[in-house]
Amino acid sequence: MTVSEKSLANAIRALSMDAVQAANSGHPGMPMGMADVATVLFKDYLKFDPKAPKWADRDRFVLSAGHGSMLIYSLLHLTGYARPTIEDIANFRQLGSPCAGHPENFELAGVEATTGPLGSGLATAVGMAIAERHLNAQFGDDLVDHRTWVLAGDGCLMEGINHEAIGLAGHLNLGRLIVLWDDNKITIDGAVDLSSSEDVRARYAATGWHVVSCDGHDMADVRRAIDEALADPRPSLIACATKIGYGAPNKAGTSGVHGSALGEAEVAAAREFLGWSAEPFVIPEDIAAAWHAIGAKGGDAHVAWADRLGSNAQRAEFERRMAGDLPAGFSLDAYIDTLIANPQKVATRKASELTLGAINDLLPETLGGSADLTGSNNTKTKSTGPLTKDDYSGRYVYYGIREFGMACAMNGMALHGGVIPYGGTFLVFSDYMRAGIRLAALQQIRAIHVLTHDSIGLGEDGPTHQPIEHVMSLRMIPNLDVYRPADIVETAECWELALKDADGPSVLALTRQNLPQLRTEKAGENLSAKGAYRLKAATAERKVVLVATGSEVEIAVATAALLEEQGIGADVVSMPSWAHFDAQPQAYKDDLLPHHVLRASIEAGTTFGWERYVGIAGLRFGIDTFGASAPAEVLYDHFGLTAAKIAPQIVAALD
Amino acid sequence: MTVSEKSLANAIRALSMDAVQAANSGHPGMPMGMADVATVLFKDYLKFDPKAPKWADRDRFVLSAGHGSMLIYSLLHLTGYARPTIEDIANFRQLGSPCAGHPENFELAGVEATTGPLGSGLATAVGMAIAERHLNAQFGDDLVDHRTWVLAGDGCLMEGINHEAIGLAGHLNLGRLIVLWDDNKITIDGAVDLSSSEDVRARYAATGWHVVSCDGHDMADVRRAIDEALADPRPSLIACATKIGYGAPNKAGTSGVHGSALGEAEVAAAREFLGWSAEPFVIPEDIAAAWHAIGAKGGDAHVAWADRLGSNAQRAEFERRMAGDLPAGFSLDAYIDTLIANPQKVATRKASELTLGAINDLLPETLGGSADLTGSNNTKTKSTGPLTKDDYSGRYVYYGIREFGMACAMNGMALHGGVIPYGGTFLVFSDYMRAGIRLAALQQIRAIHVLTHDSIGLGEDGPTHQPIEHVMSLRMIPNLDVYRPADIVETAECWELALKDADGPSVLALTRQNLPQLRTEKAGENLSAKGAYRLKAATAERKVVLVATGSEVEIAVATAALLEEQGIGADVVSMPSWAHFDAQPQAYKDDLLPHHVLRASIEAGTTFGWERYVGIAGLRFGIDTFGASAPAEVLYDHFGLTAAKIAPQIVAALD
Repeated sequence: MTVSEKSLANAIRALSMDAVQAANSGHPGMPMGMADVATVLFKDYLKFDPKAPKWADRDRFVLSAGHGSMLIYSLLHLTGYARPTIEDIANFRQLGSPCAGHPENFELAGVEATTGPLGSGLATAVGMAIAERHLNAQFGDDLVDHRTWVLAGDGCLMEGINHEAIGLAGHLNLGRLIVLWDDNKITIDGAVDLSSSEDVRARYAATGWHVVSCDGHDMADVRRAIDEALADPRPSLIACATKIGYGAPNKAGTSGVHGSALGEAEVAAAREFLGWSAEPFVIPEDIAAAWHAIGAKGGDAHVAWADRLGSNAQRAEFERRMAGDLPAGFSLDAYIDTLIANPQKVATRKASELTLGAINDLLPETLGGSADLTGSNNTKTKSTGPLTKDDYSGRYVYYGIREFGMACAMNGMALHGGVIPYGGTFLVFSDYMRAGIRLAALQQIRAIHVLTHDSIGLGEDGPTHQPIEHVMSLRMIPNLDVYRPADIVETAECWELALKDADGPSVLALTRQNLPQLRTEKAGENLSAKGAYRLKAATAERKVVLVATGSEVEIAVATAALLEEQGIGADVVSMPSWAHFDAQPQAYKDDLLPHHVLRASIEAGTTFGWERYVGIAGLRFGIDTFGASAPAEVLYDHFGLTAAKIAPQIVAALD
Repeated sequence: MTVSEKSLANAIRALSMDAVQAANSGHPGMPMGMADVATVLFKDYLKFDPKAPKWADRDRFVLSAGHGSMLIYSLLHLTGYARPTIEDIANFRQLGSPCAGHPENFELAGVEATTGPLGSGLATAVGMAIAERHLNAQFGDDLVDHRTWVLAGDGCLMEGINHEAIGLAGHLNLGRLIVLWDDNKITIDGAVDLSSSEDVRARYAATGWHVVSCDGHDMADVRRAIDEALADPRPSLIACATKIGYGAPNKAGTSGVHGSALGEAEVAAAREFLGWSAEPFVIPEDIAAAWHAIGAKGGDAHVAWADRLGSNAQRAEFERRMAGDLPAGFSLDAYIDTLIANPQKVATRKASELTLGAINDLLPETLGGSADLTGSNNTKTKSTGPLTKDDYSGRYVYYGIREFGMACAMNGMALHGGVIPYGGTFLVFSDYMRAGIRLAALQQIRAIHVLTHDSIGLGEDGPTHQPIEHVMSLRMIPNLDVYRPADIVETAECWELALKDADGPSVLALTRQNLPQLRTEKAGENLSAKGAYRLKAATAERKVVLVATGSEVEIAVATAALLEEQGIGADVVSMPSWAHFDAQPQAYKDDLLPHHVLRASIEAGTTFGWERYVGIAGLRFGIDTFGASAPAEVLYDHFGLTAAKIAPQIVAALD
């Protein structure tokens, strides 16, 4: 090709600086600084086919430094993806354009992960790389044989999540993961050495990574470094020495070029410096053609792969799994019937383990794990042997004490496709990985969090380990389904719902302590799917409706019994999911929680928010302080969450 | 002394295993494994005086591996602290005992930090070490000259927060920080190598730390290692090779001894193995005396220090600052008067910067910083030069891209005393440090978070950067004050409230976008202290009360104006703090938000929870989905948060 590589890279630079300038908002520094590296990667290494962005065996490219979104928008456009169009790019950061401030997987097919919160992209890529090796072990080289590439900045490396992510990647020896580090020595506040004195290379090496450096503006040197990374069996960090904002003659190399438009004068100066005379959003024909040729080169590989898939005995199963479809007829009905027939008193974490036993036998795509609380979260079942660097076919990841890393890895697995990740920790430690759970919700992916020890019911570990506000605060994350089942049957129902929702993450909040089985009759449907249902109808004239979740449903039932002894009719409503309940028809909601009847909520957590269902005049039993260290039953009494303490207050309120 | 060091250590082991056995709950493994190291530390190195647990110049000892709480409870009891008594220890993990499952600073004077969430203790200690050097630079060696010691386990080192904490400590070269790593090669799930292959020593060395190893069961070798650490100018990691549960002959060295009682038989076997014949909770007299002597040895140093303090010219100021008292008569009244006199339209982040300018001149104890968003959070003022390894007297920390590390360091500073830490990042990244904010609330300490870009009003950066559920989810953390001021006057008022609350953390949620000054008349009091107040009373007959926070108060005012043009009287209530409002007398609350009048809330975040103030029948204007990428004013219109879109819905609701 007669077009120089520098010209190819300058097309990225021009689009980036012009789009940011047009929006008067955005981050030109990274795309301009890393344009050369990205050009080499897309031209000579990345396996992709713009005509088939969802090709299962494509390489994954994750822009962890998501603020540099114009880099990926430029690349997708130049290589011939259907979107973004040049108009999309000209509308960078405007309502309706898929070219959002940060790259979003739900806006553009070529964006593999939604990034921006620093460090999370690289950690997500670790999950993609795990999924790739896992599926390779299950389906073979013919179907699954690709790499995961990451472009990361100093912020991604300084965040704590980086330690967790590279620790996991190093431990699992994910040699097909290659991180291109934009080593530009600049952060927002100024030089990196304003806040860090770390030897990044040595840290990566200490964590089991291969490390190589290159001049990020010397295409040949970039190739040398990538070739070295490809040859090494370990995951690789390629330190690319770059000048941030390369091409902007007066501002490059400073933090000023990181997150602001260059300004008309500097854009003009950059055009001069780069020898780029085209108007904004115009790519000279020869350069456009050269980029399109780069985009077209993956077509043959894709065709060859499709041929192999066509003759592969596992084709149907592979396609089902990559589509994210559950096996036809998947249902836990039969399992739930056996539960109904044999009532048992178990903690819902144990109920989850039993249910997972059934699920993991039915669904080969589940890939479980725990952040070093396997025996407490009850996340491991007999079908799930460990996934290790020597055997990627295992279905259980020992994530280590890395909650946030786990959440992001799960996101990467789900984004990669072919697996359904679930992972466990204590509910209180959802705080450690909240940003990862939120990203799952935003990215509309199926990642299932098994969060046990979900209240003061964990007992003696005390307030540092007792969730108070956690269930409620998770309920308010958009597109996250939070389930708090009351017994083993509801636990199975909630698991089924979590699995069947392919477009969003779920949290299962589960108890440490044993709970009686409250559901002992066949319902003929998944009652938890309604979010709430009448578990017990008043036998005397109904004076109160008790609505409770999880372990407190048992208490509501006991409270109702005390009240009915006094002739006070009491319904008990179990509400495993607020979100599902809110989606029911108004008539159903009014029937369950009628406004003219006293309503009382019981949940061993904050009472904040329960006004929605019990009204301002309702009673809200819960805990609005931190917990305490004592045996569970002592704490329930201490915090007033017993039938003996609740019933009199309801009687008083009715007077 | 004739009592052997091994006997001293065995006293810790005996108390630990017996307390856990009595509770049938707890973690004997770490206290038994690290008893020898802890004995050496307390006997020969730690500067402390059990008779004066709050002695300002004591060494700080942080048990980062907080699950091993019986280690610190044993040490405090044995060395002669007033609490815990032996009865307290016998009631380990029972309601009312200060010996909670995990150590809590608010329960025992000798517990420097509440720990348990792994990694946070070490990160907190980094803040203590910063505060020590900072105060040393301000008050001199005579008054401030102590060390910070940490006992950490593998979990503390594997968590992401560890990377941030040691990065900051290495960068600031905190040579008086020494971490004793319980290198026992065991985690809950099994051997450390089940989940990690990292060379911890090399990673610490790469981050600017001195690293030394020792045999954690060889007292002399522990001394050698500590001496080496003391001699090195860098922060030190001492890898103490130990056997978890040392002393339990059949269970030591396994994960089974980590978090469960040993069982009667193994406790008996351990007594045999250790040659410990005393009954549970009985310490032989000679051993008790030897431990008390260790506790007494710090008395002389304390007396000498008190003498120096007595003659120090800065005594009054030092004592004021260590007590956490603001200067007598501290007030922002004069500053607020100037604001009233000169109305201005500024973003509340800018208002915060202006207010901080006044505060930092009045309060030499403020110690600010930002997680690499200084220019966006507006946290730096002219009085606050950078705190660096070469000049610890600076009052501004460039925390780097380390939100969680910043939050924990701030906690450590506040716990140390003598400084009031504040730090900034984007509100959405509160998710990264939520566990740190929660620990501040639990520990009842004054750490002030400046969280800017607090809604879709940040505009183009899009949904990854736009808080939706964040303000609301922070409001439900017990003992955390969340402020969302509406203009520059409220910003100053909220800052004043945050500073005056010495017993809890605060969050200031601040805008990126400019806001008009709504408060232009002298109030004669801090109106924000009431949590909410009537900013504008209806002029026509009142038909609706609009309650709003932050940037949406302006919209409420505009909406009221539109309504009043139609003869519909509308109050506008500004509510900068839910918690303060909830604490007002019922009559005040009913007057402001009367139940018989239509109420509508306006807040550019989740509508979840607003039922509390507007009732079930009220209107809640907000955003219950993720945001979008576009200019702020476009987004406000898109999400229906404009007076033009809100007013007609109120009119319709009134029909």
